[in-house]
Amino acid sequence: MDLNKEILNKVQDVLTSATDEDKRVLTQVLNGLQSKHNGEYKTYITSFMKTSIQESGEQLEMSIPITPFLSNSVDIVHGGFTATLADTAMGTLVNRRIPENLVAVTSEMKLNYIAPGVGEALRCEATILHLGSKTSVTECKIYNDVGTLVAAASGSFYLIPR
Amino acid sequence: MDLNKEILNKVQDVLTSATDEDKRVLTQVLNGLQSKHNGEYKTYITSFMKTSIQESGEQLEMSIPITPFLSNSVDIVHGGFTATLADTAMGTLVNRRIPENLVAVTSEMKLNYIAPGVGEALRCEATILHLGSKTSVTECKIYNDVGTLVAAASGSFYLIPR
Amino acid sequence: MDLNKEILNKVQDVLTSATDEDKRVLTQVLNGLQSKHNGEYKTYITSFMKTSIQESGEQLEMSIPITPFLSNSVDIVHGGFTATLADTAMGTLVNRRIPENLVAVTSEMKLNYIAPGVGEALRCEATILHLGSKTSVTECKIYNDVGTLVAAASGSFYLIPR
Amino acid sequence: MDLNKEILNKVQDVLTSATDEDKRVLTQVLNGLQSKHNGEYKTYITSFMKTSIQESGEQLEMSIPITPFLSNSVDIVHGGFTATLADTAMGTLVNRRIPENLVAVTSEMKLNYIAPGVGEALRCEATILHLGSKTSVTECKIYNDVGTLVAAASGSFYLIPR
Repeated sequence: MDLNKEILNKVQDVLTSATDEDKRVLTQVLNGLQSKHNGEYKTYITSFMKTSIQESGEQLEMSIPITPFLSNSVDIVHGGFTATLADTAMGTLVNRRIPENLVAVTSEMKLNYIAPGVGEALRCEATILHLGSKTSVTECKIYNDVGTLVAAASGSFYLIPR
Repeated sequence: MDLNKEILNKVQDVLTSATDEDKRVLTQVLNGLQSKHNGEYKTYITSFMKTSIQESGEQLEMSIPITPFLSNSVDIVHGGFTATLADTAMGTLVNRRIPENLVAVTSEMKLNYIAPGVGEALRCEATILHLGSKTSVTECKIYNDVGTLVAAASGSFYLIPR
Repeated sequence: MDLNKEILNKVQDVLTSATDEDKRVLTQVLNGLQSKHNGEYKTYITSFMKTSIQESGEQLEMSIPITPFLSNSVDIVHGGFTATLADTAMGTLVNRRIPENLVAVTSEMKLNYIAPGVGEALRCEATILHLGSKTSVTECKIYNDVGTLVAAASGSFYLIPR
Repeated sequence: MDLNKEILNKVQDVLTSATDEDKRVLTQVLNGLQSKHNGEYKTYITSFMKTSIQESGEQLEMSIPITPFLSNSVDIVHGGFTATLADTAMGTLVNRRIPENLVAVTSEMKLNYIAPGVGEALRCEATILHLGSKTSVTECKIYNDVGTLVAAASGSFYLIPR
């Protein structure tokens, strides 16, 4: 109760001086909290990034809208979000292909940043190169909404008991 | 005005069903928005992650607290945040070493995830391996607050006119 | 003349105690020297590895026979040769796509070793992901002769004046 | 016997048209075959590269002379040899730290090429970042004989039963 009041006061304080962009980012966070509460997301960051999955055969496609939430200091998508998208898409794909008693944890990842992350959305196509009983190797390509290749990545996962 | 009201309503709605963890994450976001507004941060994500810099000689040290905001689906720091910390620390170091008319943009990055991101905080030590007129190569190590090596990374940057 | 005699004496000395494998490796080196002298190869190592190119549209395919020359200490292809094949195939592809006054030099490369390098031959399929005026980003897959994916790699190149 | 004669004939044929550089490379190969036969090397390629180990505490230092054998098409050390040196040094270090019934096989490696491989020799300093029961993560720096940083690399190894 007290904490709720404190949070509401803080929100009002923030809104006093907030830019439109600040408000847009805050709204995105609040929507994320609601979606996570509704069970649509398992993690805060993916709920804020609004990841959506479009699976297609052997691949997994995961998309996010490009919004100010993702910006780096020169107003393109922060490389950390590109990495988060790549890691999440590749990890989700592996987790969908392994027995339920196992979970995939990233052991290494490499990204090449090829074009600035600008446009309406990023779409990541993840593929499994190898799926063993203890490890998996994957790769992905990240495109923006007009089809420009923004980044390419590869990653390895340990498959460990949950 | 209208938008402010809409946001406040959404906050109240979120708080109705929010867990303590949700409230902690929302508070962290609100604090971040305030800090960014006060000029302490240039990007939303670093304000939410609460990055702090402790420079020491040739290296740059950047730390973040480990909070639920950072969690992946198995309750350790999401590899995407580890990547974001690495990218930000290495990029910030390079930006501090180059002329003001240039800016460093990441061309590639590779991370090895060595131990789970658990504990109170993550601390990233970034080092420049090469600084030319057009490119830079860097590396970093990420430790938690008890000194466990959590991740190691290397990255390259293009130095381009702002 | 003297040097020739010295070399011939050394060859005879080597042959005294050479295994069949040693002789096979020496023969491969001698054939390489001949091929390089005939202009088939620009470097010693590719002449010894007996790289051959089968270009196909946008990709470049480069193959090598698997012989004892390539073995590591557990009798599979040394990861260094897999790396050499990847680097050479990706670099050759880039060099074929850029103006003659430029040359591609590797700035970084990452390899995932997926299956042991065993069989009759390795075949590398290299693809360009990005070709700018100053840099290029490429990737490749390496298969053995029965189609097993042995390794996957990505690499970046600087395009510099010759 | 017959094969020996065939090899000697081929050597004579090669020597007829060989350049001084060709002879130097052939001599290096012959010396390598002798050293391998004497038990100094386990693999042909390391005997030809003339790797030597200077261990120092936690690190392993491995050096090779820079000779025409290593050249790429623009007369600097071929990136594949830099990779072979890195892989061999890191792998050798891990193999020296694990039980005798295990062997380290490379699962992934990434290299940043920082300065041209020129000079008298390359020296690789390899370090273990993590040594578990099933995997190891390592890194290395490669310098030339005047101390220029030529390359930096990181690599992971599976530790499997011999």
